Amino acid sequence: MRQFRAEDLQDVAVGAAVLGTGGGGDPYIGKLMAMQAIRAHGPVRVIDVDELDDDALIAPAAMMGAPTVMVEKLPNGTEIVTAFRSLEEYLGRPIDAVLCGEAGGLNSTVPFIVAAEMGLPLVDGDGMGRAFPELQMVTFTMHGVKATPMVMADDKGNSVLLHTVDNRWTERLARSATIEMGGAALIAFYAMDGRTAKRSIVRGTVTLAADIGRAIREARAAKSSPIQAVQDRVGAHRLFSAKIMDVDRRTVGGFARGEAHLEGVDADAGRSFGIQFQNEFLVAMEGDEVMVSTPDLITLLDADTGEPITTESLRFGFRVVALGIPSDPQWRTEAGLALVGPRYFGYDIDYRPVEDRVGA
Amino acid sequence: MRQFRAEDLQDVAVGAAVLGTGGGGDPYIGKLMAMQAIRAHGPVRVIDVDELDDDALIAPAAMMGAPTVMVEKLPNGTEIVTAFRSLEEYLGRPIDAVLCGEAGGLNSTVPFIVAAEMGLPLVDGDGMGRAFPELQMVTFTMHGVKATPMVMADDKGNSVLLHTVDNRWTERLARSATIEMGGAALIAFYAMDGRTAKRSIVRGTVTLAADIGRAIREARAAKSSPIQAVQDRVGAHRLFSAKIMDVDRRTVGGFARGEAHLEGVDADAGRSFGIQFQNEFLVAMEGDEVMVSTPDLITLLDADTGEPITTESLRFGFRVVALGIPSDPQWRTEAGLALVGPRYFGYDIDYRPVEDRVGA
Repeated sequence: MRQFRAEDLQDVAVGAAVLGTGGGGDPYIGKLMAMQAIRAHGPVRVIDVDELDDDALIAPAAMMGAPTVMVEKLPNGTEIVTAFRSLEEYLGRPIDAVLCGEAGGLNSTVPFIVAAEMGLPLVDGDGMGRAFPELQMVTFTMHGVKATPMVMADDKGNSVLLHTVDNRWTERLARSATIEMGGAALIAFYAMDGRTAKRSIVRGTVTLAADIGRAIREARAAKSSPIQAVQDRVGAHRLFSAKIMDVDRRTVGGFARGEAHLEGVDADAGRSFGIQFQNEFLVAMEGDEVMVSTPDLITLLDADTGEPITTESLRFGFRVVALGIPSDPQWRTEAGLALVGPRYFGYDIDYRPVEDRVGA
Repeated sequence: MRQFRAEDLQDVAVGAAVLGTGGGGDPYIGKLMAMQAIRAHGPVRVIDVDELDDDALIAPAAMMGAPTVMVEKLPNGTEIVTAFRSLEEYLGRPIDAVLCGEAGGLNSTVPFIVAAEMGLPLVDGDGMGRAFPELQMVTFTMHGVKATPMVMADDKGNSVLLHTVDNRWTERLARSATIEMGGAALIAFYAMDGRTAKRSIVRGTVTLAADIGRAIREARAAKSSPIQAVQDRVGAHRLFSAKIMDVDRRTVGGFARGEAHLEGVDADAGRSFGIQFQNEFLVAMEGDEVMVSTPDLITLLDADTGEPITTESLRFGFRVVALGIPSDPQWRTEAGLALVGPRYFGYDIDYRPVEDRVGA
């Protein structure tokens, strides 16, 4: 167990945005919201999943929607508590602990808000070890956990309780409700017992995010390379250094989709790169050659500060370093690749681990 | 109290389609489904609203969606019971009686399915005295009744429970869920007590539908005019006799929208008419002149058989007689016109009662 105070959220938000692989929401907004909640209600206890009783009731919290919208629709903090209270009411018992649905600048901090406001511990882990665009894309799905009953709440006071035949249907119905709600909603879903959480979550991602964030901060303070610090901490492969030349971006079906074109700089001068995204970065290419594909992580860091760059903040002229990070081993299985592999997203490519494609 | 047996549903479905003003679903499908449920479970008791205890819990049942889709997606009968059971579970008490949300070929018969399968009485009335395309368009809204908690269920086994800030938001979220569910869903909504039902429903529409249907059937058997029989029964104004020349139809935002062009025949030869619809007929015109507008009813009857014609069955070459029927007085108030008057639907015309426009 470790207490997270308001000032710890800075590191969590930045480190989680590294794992967010371009998605999972803006770390600045996430940090502000969580810090405010912790200042009002006190520190949040982050516990290991093994500290949970097998019969404990645990539910992940997240914000759902296109990151481009999530930046504009700052949740006021009550929606996510509304969603949790409704889920408790429906299940007829109190929720004992909160979990992150995904790792990301906003979605690693939203659960701190619920935890702080409801006085609950936050389990150190999440359902992805990164961020993915669709809500069935969690390790829970592979372990047979149902996304529903799921509660969605918006900033106007509307809420929706879903019951679906499978998690793909949850995604479908929740996505259209999210669009109607203005493009973003706060959600409570995948309620499970402690026994199930112990075998299905990706462990340690909250403390990992805090460690990555601290490594970046300390490297900057010590005038050493924050990018090297991230690489060392997560075993990342340096893909290239480049300048963003062009971003083609559109919001389609409730997702931020698009492609960024980059030109190599420094040692990579003369090379051309492309990164395609759907909320999260999915495939990084050099010309026609795949460098990294989902489920491995593609992370862009500001070349100077080491700050992670989200898809919605991609801008012409940014100088970035791209990293490839091995995904959680669960995603590299046949079942994992069926859920989140490149073919699910419509790319006619076979998954190959980042370490095989780009070497050590 | 009156028992409705399976064979009575023929008249109910046809008569309700007259009130359905082109919408409210196909009477043939509605009849089949309700007859099957009554044959399996026994007759349905149709009661006057005054027979309800003030504290009784009553909820309307309906199918929501574009009629064009509702024809293709025959509900299997379990979805609407699922919706009712979920609403009961949520409210924590049994529902005592069922009500029609709207009058229409399908939506006056769907409540018979619930009533038969759950062994509940059906209250003689509905929330419109006709059909309207959007779910906030009920007299209940004018009496401050909330549409939510509302349950939606589809043919695949998915269900959605909505809680919204107002009934317009219910429409918005339910419409998008309906679209995702394939264009149609079974719904239970506007739960209210007997006291509220007594002051807010449009009374007598189930027995009125049965009477209209019987009048059509008996007139045909007696070789007299079924159209005259309908006119006599509901105080309808004969608008014109015409042939359908052209139907422009599209499904937009989950609604069947469009326009029919007609050319007068017999005494109306040489005249041209247009009827615009959104699930239901909304405005009937001769050239640029409004003949009837919402909230008054526009009903098309087959010129030979007197059978009501729904928007989705409009076809080139059909010979029809158009009737204008005065709406329930509640719709002619300022509050009623704000909900369902021509300006709500985007027509820049003032409502004038059908009897003023086309005379007696």
